[in-house]
Amino acid sequence: MAEDFMPIDRRTLFARIGKLAGAAVMYEAMASLAHAAESTFTGPIGLTGAPKGASVLVLGSGLAGMVAAYELRKAGYKVQILEYQNRSGGRNWSLYGGDTYTELGGFTQHVGFDKGLYLNPGPWRIPHHHKGLLHYCRMLGVKLEPFIQINYNAYVHSTQAFGGRPRRYREIESDFDGHVAELLAKSTQQGKLDQPVTKEDQEILLQALRNWGALDKNYTYAKSLEASDHRGFDHPPGGGLDAMPTPSDPIGLSDLLRSGLWRAIGQAHAFDVQQSMFQPIGGMGMIGQAFGRELKDVTRYNAKVTAIHQDDSGVTATFVDTVAGGAPQTAHADWCVCTIPASILSQIPMNVGKPMQNAIYALPYGASAKVGLQMKRRFWEEDDGIYGGITYTDQPSALIGYPSTDFFKTGKGVLLGAYTFGSGAVDFTAMSPEQRIAKAVEYGANIHPQYRKEFETGATVAWHRVPWTLGCFGQWSEEMRAAHYNDICQIDGRIVLAGEHVSMIPAWQEGAVLSSLDAIGRLHKRIVQG
Amino acid sequence: MAEDFMPIDRRTLFARIGKLAGAAVMYEAMASLAHAAESTFTGPIGLTGAPKGASVLVLGSGLAGMVAAYELRKAGYKVQILEYQNRSGGRNWSLYGGDTYTELGGFTQHVGFDKGLYLNPGPWRIPHHHKGLLHYCRMLGVKLEPFIQINYNAYVHSTQAFGGRPRRYREIESDFDGHVAELLAKSTQQGKLDQPVTKEDQEILLQALRNWGALDKNYTYAKSLEASDHRGFDHPPGGGLDAMPTPSDPIGLSDLLRSGLWRAIGQAHAFDVQQSMFQPIGGMGMIGQAFGRELKDVTRYNAKVTAIHQDDSGVTATFVDTVAGGAPQTAHADWCVCTIPASILSQIPMNVGKPMQNAIYALPYGASAKVGLQMKRRFWEEDDGIYGGITYTDQPSALIGYPSTDFFKTGKGVLLGAYTFGSGAVDFTAMSPEQRIAKAVEYGANIHPQYRKEFETGATVAWHRVPWTLGCFGQWSEEMRAAHYNDICQIDGRIVLAGEHVSMIPAWQEGAVLSSLDAIGRLHKRIVQG
Repeated sequence: MAEDFMPIDRRTLFARIGKLAGAAVMYEAMASLAHAAESTFTGPIGLTGAPKGASVLVLGSGLAGMVAAYELRKAGYKVQILEYQNRSGGRNWSLYGGDTYTELGGFTQHVGFDKGLYLNPGPWRIPHHHKGLLHYCRMLGVKLEPFIQINYNAYVHSTQAFGGRPRRYREIESDFDGHVAELLAKSTQQGKLDQPVTKEDQEILLQALRNWGALDKNYTYAKSLEASDHRGFDHPPGGGLDAMPTPSDPIGLSDLLRSGLWRAIGQAHAFDVQQSMFQPIGGMGMIGQAFGRELKDVTRYNAKVTAIHQDDSGVTATFVDTVAGGAPQTAHADWCVCTIPASILSQIPMNVGKPMQNAIYALPYGASAKVGLQMKRRFWEEDDGIYGGITYTDQPSALIGYPSTDFFKTGKGVLLGAYTFGSGAVDFTAMSPEQRIAKAVEYGANIHPQYRKEFETGATVAWHRVPWTLGCFGQWSEEMRAAHYNDICQIDGRIVLAGEHVSMIPAWQEGAVLSSLDAIGRLHKRIVQG
Repeated sequence: MAEDFMPIDRRTLFARIGKLAGAAVMYEAMASLAHAAESTFTGPIGLTGAPKGASVLVLGSGLAGMVAAYELRKAGYKVQILEYQNRSGGRNWSLYGGDTYTELGGFTQHVGFDKGLYLNPGPWRIPHHHKGLLHYCRMLGVKLEPFIQINYNAYVHSTQAFGGRPRRYREIESDFDGHVAELLAKSTQQGKLDQPVTKEDQEILLQALRNWGALDKNYTYAKSLEASDHRGFDHPPGGGLDAMPTPSDPIGLSDLLRSGLWRAIGQAHAFDVQQSMFQPIGGMGMIGQAFGRELKDVTRYNAKVTAIHQDDSGVTATFVDTVAGGAPQTAHADWCVCTIPASILSQIPMNVGKPMQNAIYALPYGASAKVGLQMKRRFWEEDDGIYGGITYTDQPSALIGYPSTDFFKTGKGVLLGAYTFGSGAVDFTAMSPEQRIAKAVEYGANIHPQYRKEFETGATVAWHRVPWTLGCFGQWSEEMRAAHYNDICQIDGRIVLAGEHVSMIPAWQEGAVLSSLDAIGRLHKRIVQG
């Protein structure tokens, strides 16, 4: 929810780190971003009956802009898109070998990934309940494959716990559940439950806790085959002789609590990352590319909008062709759907009323940075048995994302070597691309020593240095929502805004899609009903 | 573990069902089968230096037999496989359209699935830690794709709870966690913890419980946006106006406990089904097929072994060609790896010592049945938003498995409409294939009413009616393990047994692989060292 995105000042952040003795505060930021959101999408919007000759100018060919252009054109409107970049998709974007990317500050990266490998600098996964986005994937023929979010064999890591040695996700999950189950079972057995729970319910509760927490017959979470059936064995069961399993030692309750690693496991429960999840085969950017092909005829690329003006006759956007150059040009239509991020739009003169203008000015953009690292071999699979999923760390790099594709393939692979938010992202953004990549390698090597030998080349995007967004996502606080959200959604004269920043699902593509559908639905109604 | 597989007599079973007011006892059987097992596989076996001219006869071309034949041939042995069926793979098997299968009792099924659709009658998923099996998949070039085990959007269903309406997995999981977290948080706050937990640890515990259980600021699991962020919203967050989410109502603790549905969620924790998991693209049978091609030159199909005799000169198997007919023939080698299931082997004369013979006689085989149902369209995805994963039910069909392939594809699909163990499997086995299919449709329609309109054709395998296994897997009890397991593993003269029944990972392919590697490792050592 919105309140999760409130910036934490550095002092508070470090105080909390101190208090938890190395608890991985980054987990919280990740969990927050993972919160919120199912889709309100109930089916194709199916607009019809545009007035003859009516036209709409769409600013921005990200997902919100393309959804608007596609559906309005289908409804009979004359549609034109102006796009700053030379490609469609916006934050729906994959970086491939051969791509060139220049960020603010002037650093240019020539991406050196091998063919078939990529980094998704922005969104990288699609929840199964993001029905709006999934509808367009289906419509555009974008093929999807499962995205592995939770991997019990991946690591959770804190520099402050267990001597900096990573633990398997399964150990932390099983031990947390086990200790919780034991504590509650003991309280139940001793009649210490606070709430009135009937004797019969208590019996069922004990049974449930034993089953769920892998307790032994005394309701203790102990070194046992039961517990090892959850957390893993010292010597796993095998075949033939020497096949008898031996149990492993659970982490003690106090060590577990003080490690802070329990923060990582709550995330599996968040609605937005619950199995099953998906990703486009070949990179998230496949959606933007397919949508762009669909709308090629109505899209003008390399068009930098410098002013937006509305009057009784319609809306006029002034723009500069960033490649051809020359004098400013204009595009005109009866109506305008503007999907330019507020971070950019606040710098473009536009004659809308105070309420919308204030909302645009007020909204800050969240910081985030990603680093992709090409490795000579897929050692995380070959050596560590980690196939997809995420390793969490309290280092500033926050996590390692393992590719959910090309499983068991020999040869190279690209890891997501860092995915940071908040203060970690600010630090990464302050670095040059080379420094970011070097840092991601340094942090990662504390978990996978193989990094040192296998790292080959990297690519990185720090969203506050992206010229066309100046940030990652609209970072609404609860107070800002109360003050401005309603205003940013309204149709102002002939202009309506759309994008993830005009939604309750910030930072997710579904927010952009639903925002766009809501905006054009209302706009169309306004136009048709006059 | 082994003790989980102990057969439950019907009276006990029904008594337990009664006691739990409709608790889904089937979940227990499923959870039990899901227990046990990591792999002890540490790398290719790499046997070398077979004595010149030494030969090994392998009986059965399931995974255990083919691993043995492949590795022994590589080590320099002269190898021959006798196989009862006209194909390799054994229980590694997929049924495709056009296949014909005749079970004991004489029922013949002509499988009517469309091209590309299949049922895996036996194994259907590969845990990421089944390293032995994964090694052979890699070696054979069998391509794997993710198998979705846990799907928060799938259902849990009890005919005795919530008026027979299925609930989403996410609701049960979130509500169980939430209530457990609240109960323990309250006990903690009121100083009622049984164990000595320091004040500092208690503070961390409260923080962890709140995060993990989605408790509100009063440590209550209530109708709230926090809880809905786990269990789902009444009105989910959306885009633009009307985007504000509204929370959903958690199920009360008593209703939840009495529903028995909590039994389903413990399963996600079991080692053998922890993400990530895999399946061969195109059906589990791809492994057996690929292995069979590799060993084609040394495999004799349609060879029904009727006697096994060893003496100082070697081992002789007498067999009948079930297609060509004619007089019994013999195959002879210096040594023998016998992978024929104990259920069949107990009926074949074989001169081994009492200990091995007793073990073979003693081991019963577990019951299981599966039903595959072809549907005209993938309504579980299109209507219910369920992409892969499993719905659990307390009906005799036990579960519905949704295909982990062809996601988002239009057109037909094959559901696993029933996967039963224990008494449910005995009931299913007693039916004709047509009846089994009809029952699976009937049970499934209580969860997905679309079954009635969309069902097209089915296929089913009840393992006690499979002529070449007479059961699903070696069902060891703890007592039987103690009495016989060591004996069944020993090399008896020139004969060694292998298969899942000679492992501590019953019913899993990894058990067969590891058992075979253990057997041939010891056999080779015996041969070389004399």
